Amino acid sequence: MQKYFISSSDLIKNIILGDDVFHIKNVMRGRIGDHIIVSDEQQEYLVEITAIEKNKVKFDILKERHNQNELPVEVCLIQGFPKGDKLEEIIKTSTQLGITEIIPTLMKRSVVKVDFIKSETKTIRWNKIAKEASEQADRKRIPLVSPPKKLKELNFSHFTHKMVCYEESAKNNEQSNFKQVLSSLIKGDKLCVVVGPEGGLDEEEIIILEKQGFICCGLGPRILRTETAITYVLASVSYEVELK
Amino acid sequence: MQKYFISSSDLIKNIILGDDVFHIKNVMRGRIGDHIIVSDEQQEYLVEITAIEKNKVKFDILKERHNQNELPVEVCLIQGFPKGDKLEEIIKTSTQLGITEIIPTLMKRSVVKVDFIKSETKTIRWNKIAKEASEQADRKRIPLVSPPKKLKELNFSHFTHKMVCYEESAKNNEQSNFKQVLSSLIKGDKLCVVVGPEGGLDEEEIIILEKQGFICCGLGPRILRTETAITYVLASVSYEVELK
Repeated sequence: MQKYFISSSDLIKNIILGDDVFHIKNVMRGRIGDHIIVSDEQQEYLVEITAIEKNKVKFDILKERHNQNELPVEVCLIQGFPKGDKLEEIIKTSTQLGITEIIPTLMKRSVVKVDFIKSETKTIRWNKIAKEASEQADRKRIPLVSPPKKLKELNFSHFTHKMVCYEESAKNNEQSNFKQVLSSLIKGDKLCVVVGPEGGLDEEEIIILEKQGFICCGLGPRILRTETAITYVLASVSYEVELK
Repeated sequence: MQKYFISSSDLIKNIILGDDVFHIKNVMRGRIGDHIIVSDEQQEYLVEITAIEKNKVKFDILKERHNQNELPVEVCLIQGFPKGDKLEEIIKTSTQLGITEIIPTLMKRSVVKVDFIKSETKTIRWNKIAKEASEQADRKRIPLVSPPKKLKELNFSHFTHKMVCYEESAKNNEQSNFKQVLSSLIKGDKLCVVVGPEGGLDEEEIIILEKQGFICCGLGPRILRTETAITYVLASVSYEVELK
């Protein structure tokens, strides 16, 4: 069933505003009497559409819904800024797989020039992608995509676990660090995952991260593209902590 | 280092022919003296380029390379035919993650009309994508992408493990089947994974598969898109059987 994240104030007023109105009318071809799900990331309800106006959809609440689809651990991705529209793909896929936060980060081997001043429009777009992917995945929360940062600006002090996906680890037949990190996770932990851009992380960056307590992890023997690394990590986190 | 899969007969003759010549000359801007890796999926060598001609590159073998990057179990994907160019994305990503075989399969909810007669050109293209993704991932083997099939044409008798990714399992809070299947895998096993198209598998299809010994598995509580399901499965297989 289609889900829409709306603001808490709209939820109290039983209305949907903004782009979602267009989506209900033109994409879902919604009609009065249709059932949908609305959520303000705290409360979630099954509701019935009672009116479809030009810029507003009204609804009645039918019943509360208990959404427990969030990963038991928070995962923050520090993603080396990739080429083209790969970041959008990474946002879509990692949102489906339960990411909590994504920080697009300029690293030494990032080819793309990031215009930090103009990046506001992009950041709005990235968060819209995260909202739509969360709705599709039936998540309780929308991950936050932050504006682009530089690696040295970041503060890692609030994370309980810190790992960096490092191709050289895999080449050197390092096969145990990742499983060790994941098997020590418990509910409420905060895992920080660093993934390099296309050329991978620079050795100096690795040294800086290791000094901050990051553990270099290989993700199996094959060479993964930058956009695949976080999917490997998130699937493994879910496999390790959610499945029985 | 750039890798090229070539035929066994070209390997014996120490030559590279076909599209790879264009790639070496124009994409890699290769020169005499450059080192590359060549493989016929059996033997793999570090070689030095000794001549670059119009339609041929010649090389000398420097040393043999022992590639052990294949998953210890074979994984065959029966992929419900998806919309647009998603199949190409699935081939790229699942090749990186170690898939053995991909069978694009027409299922009840596949929206795309598959022209089985004209699909020969597409099958050639899909296998080219698999070859290039294998080269990038530094795999020993290239997965086989078969021409499109219908579900009822398929024979599952040679698989040791059979599972179907089923959204309804996840909704019904089924959390243990997938881990049970994966934890019973040993080296040399053959796992068959069925993934539905966008609308998911039809109930009748599930009944047919269950009769053939398939186990319905949930892949965590979130709803995954069809193109993400196999990445979840393959990452988990690698995590379970390759990492220590």
